[in-house]
Amino acid sequence: MYDVYSIREDFPVLREVIYLDSAATSQKPVQVADAVSEYFKRYCGNYGRGAHRLSKMTTEKYEDAREDVASFLGLPAKKSIFTRNATESINMVALGMDWKKGDNIITAVVEHHSNLLPWIRLREKGVEVTIVDSDDKGIVSPASIEEAITERTRLIAIGHVSNFFGSVQDIKSISKIAKKHGVKFLVDAAQSAGEMQIDFRGLDIDFLCLPGHKGLLGPQGTGILYIREPERLSPVYVGGGTIKTVTLDEFSFDEIPSRFEYGTPNIPGVIGLGRAVNYVKDIGVESIESHLKAVSGYCVKRLSEIPQVEIYGPENRGSLVSFNVRNVNPHDAAMILDETKKICVRSGQHCAQTALARLCISGSIRASFGCYTTMEEIDALAESVEMIAKAFS
Amino acid sequence: MYDVYSIREDFPVLREVIYLDSAATSQKPVQVADAVSEYFKRYCGNYGRGAHRLSKMTTEKYEDAREDVASFLGLPAKKSIFTRNATESINMVALGMDWKKGDNIITAVVEHHSNLLPWIRLREKGVEVTIVDSDDKGIVSPASIEEAITERTRLIAIGHVSNFFGSVQDIKSISKIAKKHGVKFLVDAAQSAGEMQIDFRGLDIDFLCLPGHKGLLGPQGTGILYIREPERLSPVYVGGGTIKTVTLDEFSFDEIPSRFEYGTPNIPGVIGLGRAVNYVKDIGVESIESHLKAVSGYCVKRLSEIPQVEIYGPENRGSLVSFNVRNVNPHDAAMILDETKKICVRSGQHCAQTALARLCISGSIRASFGCYTTMEEIDALAESVEMIAKAFS
Repeated sequence: MYDVYSIREDFPVLREVIYLDSAATSQKPVQVADAVSEYFKRYCGNYGRGAHRLSKMTTEKYEDAREDVASFLGLPAKKSIFTRNATESINMVALGMDWKKGDNIITAVVEHHSNLLPWIRLREKGVEVTIVDSDDKGIVSPASIEEAITERTRLIAIGHVSNFFGSVQDIKSISKIAKKHGVKFLVDAAQSAGEMQIDFRGLDIDFLCLPGHKGLLGPQGTGILYIREPERLSPVYVGGGTIKTVTLDEFSFDEIPSRFEYGTPNIPGVIGLGRAVNYVKDIGVESIESHLKAVSGYCVKRLSEIPQVEIYGPENRGSLVSFNVRNVNPHDAAMILDETKKICVRSGQHCAQTALARLCISGSIRASFGCYTTMEEIDALAESVEMIAKAFS
Repeated sequence: MYDVYSIREDFPVLREVIYLDSAATSQKPVQVADAVSEYFKRYCGNYGRGAHRLSKMTTEKYEDAREDVASFLGLPAKKSIFTRNATESINMVALGMDWKKGDNIITAVVEHHSNLLPWIRLREKGVEVTIVDSDDKGIVSPASIEEAITERTRLIAIGHVSNFFGSVQDIKSISKIAKKHGVKFLVDAAQSAGEMQIDFRGLDIDFLCLPGHKGLLGPQGTGILYIREPERLSPVYVGGGTIKTVTLDEFSFDEIPSRFEYGTPNIPGVIGLGRAVNYVKDIGVESIESHLKAVSGYCVKRLSEIPQVEIYGPENRGSLVSFNVRNVNPHDAAMILDETKKICVRSGQHCAQTALARLCISGSIRASFGCYTTMEEIDALAESVEMIAKAFS
């Protein structure tokens, strides 16, 4: 039995507000704050750099976090790099691959800016970028991706769940297409990791990019990049911690994953992420997924009863609902929700301008959920939205 | 009156160990841990991305931290970018400048790998890198830098304090030389920020790179990059948070500093860094500098009384002392110090292989200090080193 009320006891801020902005960043259980605090107060040292007890303990805890996060995601720890966020993970691939003029990349119109800009920018190097369309629910058909493949296609980069539509892409089918055509496949799992049961072991994925601070409930400033063939990707940033030997003339890279983790890393963040993943694991992703499905479904149901509300995205969706209220600027709606009922939602373009342009809209309200969201909170949202809708109609 | 004992009450781990590895990473006052914890538990939201109260409060605290850190360093806040560490800051310059084949960069043999590798790597693009020598105390003469300047020199990149020698470079004179020749000047202040009074306002510096987790006492995973002319540097990583508009064909960059801060930043880290800088400011950098000078001087004095000990670096030094004990492998010495007396020092190459090669040595012991280091701790170090020296002689 999923006991959302007992989960909520670990999230003190939820006593103060109705937090429906988990797709931007999730709330963190006190266990994560305490793990970070314990690091600072009890064994703070640098990673991998000393023979003394604090450095050893730090390194051990950091590597334990890597093992925990990787095993949770079904990834080999040695190929799982800690990054700053999913944006960095994706950029590391865009800048680390050896592109030739005329190479082709396929991505989609629904993508978050962070899975669009790094590719668009490669056009400056003569790389061709094909941006495939979606349907009006934000679903990208695997067939349209296959049709877009040319002899020069080297990479398909797709987000698992759209952060605006909530649409879930069929990454299993796309991975098969990629494999069939000998094309590399990158998945941006920013809106699915920790919220959907995905065993990445079972999928042909070359690069998996995700943040630590959303569904995994970890600190902001953490991310993961899994690389299937790390020896074929060049590190973008170099310096302390990334190399084995240096002379005045040359240098050689350190082992994997060290060569990708430049300088002193975000140690407290990584330790917090390790704790967070274990928290999610203890609840069970299967249970969280069911809970989020129920919450999203209920939110769609309640909002669709309000005639002035237009909801975007498909029926089968991730843990978010984007919508607009007739005659109401989304920012105004968000402000009213916050000021009258302490309901925190996001408004605007959600770093997904091309997705919104697809629907010829310039903004939306977005309610998004976490393992701690209750049906009562959805009721409160729906009641307030209805009030706003009536006031402006 | 500098009361090191009352300062130490804010650093609980110092009751357990003798921590002489602050040049790798400093200990953090409980106030920093508590500021981070408060963010997680009381107002956790994303930065700059929402109209609701948690997002607003987070953004306000994040920007307060930027103001505090910048004003502490004498920098304009709008040109001060939060990065992951000094390594990232330096790489952002190396990859963000518009290099032409044949351009020349001047750096020095004593540099940390993070201020050497990013430049050496540019040789692949046809950039010429001149690595000027130091004297055998690790001091780089401004005259040798001026002599190395050619018509094609575009950048001089120098570390303020060597993390191996402890030598302090004359960045004032070098900045004048750079200005005179119309060459840009980058300073790596990793081993001086927070420990020496430097008002960067008074210096002609184009790029200032530093970590948050050393002398500033902030969390690991934070750094600063000050850019004098930010509109002339290209952001390396792009995506959420860095751009203003996106279509399928093009995009335009956001304002400064946003365009350089890709994706969700290390919010808890930045908030902790803001708190840390205020802690340092409350003690006073002037007082910390005097204290560190006294501690370093005393350490040199005590160690130089041991005949088997060789000390590297000049008399006027930063907050560290590198040395070796005759017939003793530095790693063994570090392990013995830790195991017998819980003394934490660093051993090895200190990410400065070319600096060590300059002296034809392959490693050293390094003791390094913070605002919380006591003379009694130096006594304990000296006594143990003497014991080790005798045992191995």
